[in-house]
Amino acid sequence: MRDLPVLNPLIVETAVRAALLEDFGRAGDVTSQATIPADAQARAAFGARKAGVISGLDAARATFRIVDPAVTFEAHAQDGDVVAPGAKIAHVAGNARALLAAERVALNFLGRMSGVATLTHRYAQAVAHTRAKICCTRKTTPGMRAFEKYAVRCGGGMNHRFGLDDAVLIKDNHVAVAGGVAPALRAAKRHAGHLVKIEIEVDRLSQLDEVIGEGADVVMLDNMSLDDMREAVRRVAGRMKVEASGGVNLDTVKAIAETGVDLISVGALTHSASVLDLGLDIEIG
Amino acid sequence: MRDLPVLNPLIVETAVRAALLEDFGRAGDVTSQATIPADAQARAAFGARKAGVISGLDAARATFRIVDPAVTFEAHAQDGDVVAPGAKIAHVAGNARALLAAERVALNFLGRMSGVATLTHRYAQAVAHTRAKICCTRKTTPGMRAFEKYAVRCGGGMNHRFGLDDAVLIKDNHVAVAGGVAPALRAAKRHAGHLVKIEIEVDRLSQLDEVIGEGADVVMLDNMSLDDMREAVRRVAGRMKVEASGGVNLDTVKAIAETGVDLISVGALTHSASVLDLGLDIEIG
Amino acid sequence: MRDLPVLNPLIVETAVRAALLEDFGRAGDVTSQATIPADAQARAAFGARKAGVISGLDAARATFRIVDPAVTFEAHAQDGDVVAPGAKIAHVAGNARALLAAERVALNFLGRMSGVATLTHRYAQAVAHTRAKICCTRKTTPGMRAFEKYAVRCGGGMNHRFGLDDAVLIKDNHVAVAGGVAPALRAAKRHAGHLVKIEIEVDRLSQLDEVIGEGADVVMLDNMSLDDMREAVRRVAGRMKVEASGGVNLDTVKAIAETGVDLISVGALTHSASVLDLGLDIEIG
Amino acid sequence: MRDLPVLNPLIVETAVRAALLEDFGRAGDVTSQATIPADAQARAAFGARKAGVISGLDAARATFRIVDPAVTFEAHAQDGDVVAPGAKIAHVAGNARALLAAERVALNFLGRMSGVATLTHRYAQAVAHTRAKICCTRKTTPGMRAFEKYAVRCGGGMNHRFGLDDAVLIKDNHVAVAGGVAPALRAAKRHAGHLVKIEIEVDRLSQLDEVIGEGADVVMLDNMSLDDMREAVRRVAGRMKVEASGGVNLDTVKAIAETGVDLISVGALTHSASVLDLGLDIEIG
Amino acid sequence: MRDLPVLNPLIVETAVRAALLEDFGRAGDVTSQATIPADAQARAAFGARKAGVISGLDAARATFRIVDPAVTFEAHAQDGDVVAPGAKIAHVAGNARALLAAERVALNFLGRMSGVATLTHRYAQAVAHTRAKICCTRKTTPGMRAFEKYAVRCGGGMNHRFGLDDAVLIKDNHVAVAGGVAPALRAAKRHAGHLVKIEIEVDRLSQLDEVIGEGADVVMLDNMSLDDMREAVRRVAGRMKVEASGGVNLDTVKAIAETGVDLISVGALTHSASVLDLGLDIEIG
Amino acid sequence: MRDLPVLNPLIVETAVRAALLEDFGRAGDVTSQATIPADAQARAAFGARKAGVISGLDAARATFRIVDPAVTFEAHAQDGDVVAPGAKIAHVAGNARALLAAERVALNFLGRMSGVATLTHRYAQAVAHTRAKICCTRKTTPGMRAFEKYAVRCGGGMNHRFGLDDAVLIKDNHVAVAGGVAPALRAAKRHAGHLVKIEIEVDRLSQLDEVIGEGADVVMLDNMSLDDMREAVRRVAGRMKVEASGGVNLDTVKAIAETGVDLISVGALTHSASVLDLGLDIEIG
Repeated sequence: MRDLPVLNPLIVETAVRAALLEDFGRAGDVTSQATIPADAQARAAFGARKAGVISGLDAARATFRIVDPAVTFEAHAQDGDVVAPGAKIAHVAGNARALLAAERVALNFLGRMSGVATLTHRYAQAVAHTRAKICCTRKTTPGMRAFEKYAVRCGGGMNHRFGLDDAVLIKDNHVAVAGGVAPALRAAKRHAGHLVKIEIEVDRLSQLDEVIGEGADVVMLDNMSLDDMREAVRRVAGRMKVEASGGVNLDTVKAIAETGVDLISVGALTHSASVLDLGLDIEIG
Repeated sequence: MRDLPVLNPLIVETAVRAALLEDFGRAGDVTSQATIPADAQARAAFGARKAGVISGLDAARATFRIVDPAVTFEAHAQDGDVVAPGAKIAHVAGNARALLAAERVALNFLGRMSGVATLTHRYAQAVAHTRAKICCTRKTTPGMRAFEKYAVRCGGGMNHRFGLDDAVLIKDNHVAVAGGVAPALRAAKRHAGHLVKIEIEVDRLSQLDEVIGEGADVVMLDNMSLDDMREAVRRVAGRMKVEASGGVNLDTVKAIAETGVDLISVGALTHSASVLDLGLDIEIG
Repeated sequence: MRDLPVLNPLIVETAVRAALLEDFGRAGDVTSQATIPADAQARAAFGARKAGVISGLDAARATFRIVDPAVTFEAHAQDGDVVAPGAKIAHVAGNARALLAAERVALNFLGRMSGVATLTHRYAQAVAHTRAKICCTRKTTPGMRAFEKYAVRCGGGMNHRFGLDDAVLIKDNHVAVAGGVAPALRAAKRHAGHLVKIEIEVDRLSQLDEVIGEGADVVMLDNMSLDDMREAVRRVAGRMKVEASGGVNLDTVKAIAETGVDLISVGALTHSASVLDLGLDIEIG
Repeated sequence: MRDLPVLNPLIVETAVRAALLEDFGRAGDVTSQATIPADAQARAAFGARKAGVISGLDAARATFRIVDPAVTFEAHAQDGDVVAPGAKIAHVAGNARALLAAERVALNFLGRMSGVATLTHRYAQAVAHTRAKICCTRKTTPGMRAFEKYAVRCGGGMNHRFGLDDAVLIKDNHVAVAGGVAPALRAAKRHAGHLVKIEIEVDRLSQLDEVIGEGADVVMLDNMSLDDMREAVRRVAGRMKVEASGGVNLDTVKAIAETGVDLISVGALTHSASVLDLGLDIEIG
Repeated sequence: MRDLPVLNPLIVETAVRAALLEDFGRAGDVTSQATIPADAQARAAFGARKAGVISGLDAARATFRIVDPAVTFEAHAQDGDVVAPGAKIAHVAGNARALLAAERVALNFLGRMSGVATLTHRYAQAVAHTRAKICCTRKTTPGMRAFEKYAVRCGGGMNHRFGLDDAVLIKDNHVAVAGGVAPALRAAKRHAGHLVKIEIEVDRLSQLDEVIGEGADVVMLDNMSLDDMREAVRRVAGRMKVEASGGVNLDTVKAIAETGVDLISVGALTHSASVLDLGLDIEIG
Repeated sequence: MRDLPVLNPLIVETAVRAALLEDFGRAGDVTSQATIPADAQARAAFGARKAGVISGLDAARATFRIVDPAVTFEAHAQDGDVVAPGAKIAHVAGNARALLAAERVALNFLGRMSGVATLTHRYAQAVAHTRAKICCTRKTTPGMRAFEKYAVRCGGGMNHRFGLDDAVLIKDNHVAVAGGVAPALRAAKRHAGHLVKIEIEVDRLSQLDEVIGEGADVVMLDNMSLDDMREAVRRVAGRMKVEASGGVNLDTVKAIAETGVDLISVGALTHSASVLDLGLDIEIG
């Protein structure tokens, strides 16, 4: 089977409801209330105005359902699909006021998530000839992490930690306080449960040797030169995953991937993606 | 007095608390729990790594306060300030685990909001020699609208509607259903309260004449040519505000502003801003 | 089309659910649990015991739906309808325990909202021969503003601001601090977005002249004599809306309306309306 | 000690926070933001404009505290006090914007609760020469029950059930389904816990005899004539509490009380009280 | 009719949703997402592995419904039924991922509630030959009180107070501060509404005489000897309910019941019940 | 440093607040309101009536703070401490009504969490002479997982998964659908992020060989005989963690540990622990 990522529907429900309240305020869509008859029907198509990767159809569907359970939502694509400009992604049909009231919230989810997926896809394509996978960070929009992490997977990326609690990631400050790489790793192993992985950040090769000596699940090479990355991969020799981090952009990612690292984490996937330009073309009957 | 925008502290409290729960998950910062003594103290500085406009200090302050009320937060800038690369924006001091646990959420608010403010500032600078003001749209991140609208003001922009309910904005679909510009405007005036403004979108000059005949608070020129915009401004002759919309970017905004329009709305301010690159440099004592 | 007001269904859902929890407490309807078989069926009619204007049918319908989705709710009137004593407004049918458990909450919404609508209607009738419209204030019951504002519209009134943020309303204190009517208006115009209206309160004609000189969307005449109101209307001469406020009751409202003001705001609509006397007559099958 | 009622502070916190969000909307007090300097200080007095009974000082205090913890709130009265027109009830002092932003919500709680207390007090005074106590019903404003029940006690009334779950109240429908007064009472005793009281409604004396035979904690006389009420009191002879209900108003309550009943329940206390006219006079420094 | 207890469905909905979020975290059931096709169907049976009393079927049903409304849930027992080891209690059928994702939460509700019901049943059986009823306390799991109180009733027990507010329970500290049993009872009667029962705890017979003199609804004998309990029952002579408390376990409860008390409260019912061992056997189609 | 587990304070705050609302209901502690003067002061000691391990002091402290911020809470132990019968664990002092109102909720958290910690400790002691660690499961009380998992660590146990999302745990159903152990493991590795561990359940040695061939982080031996467990440990030879599961109780755990497994998971820790018997002795001043 094609391995589609899954988005927790309870989180979708909560977030969409909050987003609708945010947009409706107290009085709702006063424009449509004034100008559209209460029983007018309409039909509309979500269309891509640029090429990209779709993500967020469940959120869009939930938006219309919450506004009016009688609205139908028919998807012509699924999350993760690459679409061309002009592609029709989905049709909605039902009460015209409901469609107009839900439009912006649905597009805000779909556009942002597809934007993240599209940018991820671009990075993933750039390294497709290597073993490296692109992954995200915790540099996400407050309240949107589950959506953005899901979008990264739709775009062909991997997910890093979802939060502070689902893996240990030892950074320079932790190493400094703990008194070095080895003591930090030993403390982490003592503290962490048997189902919690341990990653550690190093910024020079000498630290890496300590990590290899002590053992870890993943080592993160922070802002290393290409040469040092290549050497790090060589030294690790498959005993743990190697992640490159820092200074990654679409210009540099290919060379980084070619050093042989397993993972390349890119904050920009979630903190600096532009929306994918999508529109909803409404035909009111 | 300098006219600083204000962010509703009840909304900040709720959003920061939710963002912390999102990041802490169930077990919290397992890395610091493993490697940092419970009573270690630390001090840290928020620094700008690029030039930009600061926005979100209240959210950052609230993040540390909620994690640990004993942490001190001293700001050296205020929202709306333009800062140079390397500038120290604020210092925090207190329990080291608290600082490390709060770091990412604080940066996620501050970085995104400052990113929006910085991009807005760039647009505002580009039109500073004209009467035109830059304003935002409802193309915001779900759940973050109050924050993003506030950041737009920090960057020198104006706010458009906060939602569907605080102003009437008649678009092409409404005009079509209502049977034309004039009937749509009359319906809106009948329906809207006396404290609700009415804006209407037109995409050609003939529609504009109808708007002028019927009267409105604001007319939005949708994707018009520069010549048509100039002509529209001439015809309106100050009887209502004129807003330009569509196809606005940093290359086109100057020429649009020079047509004499009052407002230029830019979706990209909120839907496609990159974060401002900020960091927290921690010194653990 | 008849211009029916609309009540945000997301707000209805939330408020009805909270009201049911408030009434059910921890153990629910212990009386019916003890005395009514779990599968007994019933039918019941909402009847008006006094004449009035109906408002709140959506809240009543939602109450029964949330308690038991299988209960049917058939309305014989719509919000805004004037009903005579004895009129049947709606029928509900289904599980007897569900009907009895939902009864009080449904009546509490319907009675209070219809009470507000009925009182508003009385004011609106008293001024129907003039140009004046009756409008409400922010003197609403905590948590019930959206419901009460909607009920005002059902009774034929207009809505004033929904809250502190959807229009500027400059009162005497603001004028005093800002250093006068003109500086206050100028500050407001500088601060407010292009879709935010500005109203200012004056209590004497000399202040009104300043307002006219500076320009505003609405001027509120606070506790003026009938003669001053008439003179104010004359001086404004249609350049802005004129709202009368203070000392309005069913004895005075007609004379106030005849001064030519556009709007008369009445706090009593929401802060001192009696419920409309409605009952639910249950026939258990 | 004077037996003051108590209002659950967790409920106050939640309701005040919700009311502030309702009033602040997304952008908060835009008027004060535009016209009052961010650091202006002010002082203000809550004054009674009519005579009445005060209720709600905790809610008012919480309102200012939540908006700005630095605002001081000094009460000169306590809930339950009878105040004369012109009485100063409390002073607040602090940031001027905070005072203006919190004013309306604080007054909405205080005015409504004091209105309920004042109306209750009027009923209580009318029956003070008898053994009868005035009590409330479940005909309360959705979401405000705890506040309104508390206000009833501030006015000298007693509380009836707080909800469907804290006592059994057998009404005509329950009697009909259960097959009579005695079977209904027996079912209730079987079902109810040993700490749950049982009240039953009767509308004629023959039913009362059945209740006396079977035993209950309270009997409610529904819409009986004064003569029947007197006779009911005689027959009950102190074996249970007797509550009069239906058709109670300020004209009839005295005669009802003089029949010797223990309790008179009055829906109007909570469903039809007018606010007590209170104001906040602000002096900005 | 069989007098089945009822569990407030609004509370079920809220608690089940929270429990699912707790279990799903941010990414949901990653195992099933990886190994089970998105459209695989399955069927499963809830089976008892030990004998016991079932409680919590509504919570289990709601769990599957919230995860996937298309899953069917067919119960073969109802709450309160005694089941033998191996009994099939219910079948669920539908999407395989949904069934696996909901399994643990459904079992956690059902197992714990059935555990409480089963333990209660054991106590109730032990005293079935006496007039005594077993009842619970407020020693419940935080957040689970409504569920555990309901389970007690499923097991044949009675409910004590649901919380601090639905009855007065005067304990030794209250007696000490109030200055004795009689003043405490008089204060309680003055304060409590007419639908609130009053119980008082005594630990020696001399106090009991004071209670009898003053009158109460229930007297609780705290940690008395069997002889004293018998004597207490004799002295009370049916004028109020007598509750035994303290030192109750399955070894002592029979003798306590045979003293003639009306009620025996047992903290262990809710604070120390083991789960009933239930399993879900899944057959994936 | 001593490696103390940490409980997320945001979760504590939310859960304690909910538990207080659950216990206070609408009217709060009506007994203390009636019998204790509003300004009475008191002091009280938390005492252990049985030996055990303390867990939950933060929740207890938060309970008093939320009821009344002026109450002081002084702990004489810390979570994880073993206490003897009669030990004083903490003192609280302040308003007497606040202390009495908060008592039960504080004890409900502290008693249950200490009960889990104490039971865990007993298991941990039984295997202290081996390499095996005791760990918990997802068989927790709905809504209490973070508290119970924390209590397990206070008792010297390890935490298994916090939920469905923070590790992959492949069970028999997953293996069946995936077509065997190896395909299931391969699917999991493809799907899971690089920071997500993978555990797989086997119930016979032949499956284990497949797991060893394919590789995993942890293998769970489900209900195996002691001999098979020993053989499994031998075959694994340190290449992954070995967890024993099923049929574990205080009689069998020692022998299981002595087979050489790394982990023994025990559902009873959280689903069937009795509370630790703790009391609060109040002295009202």
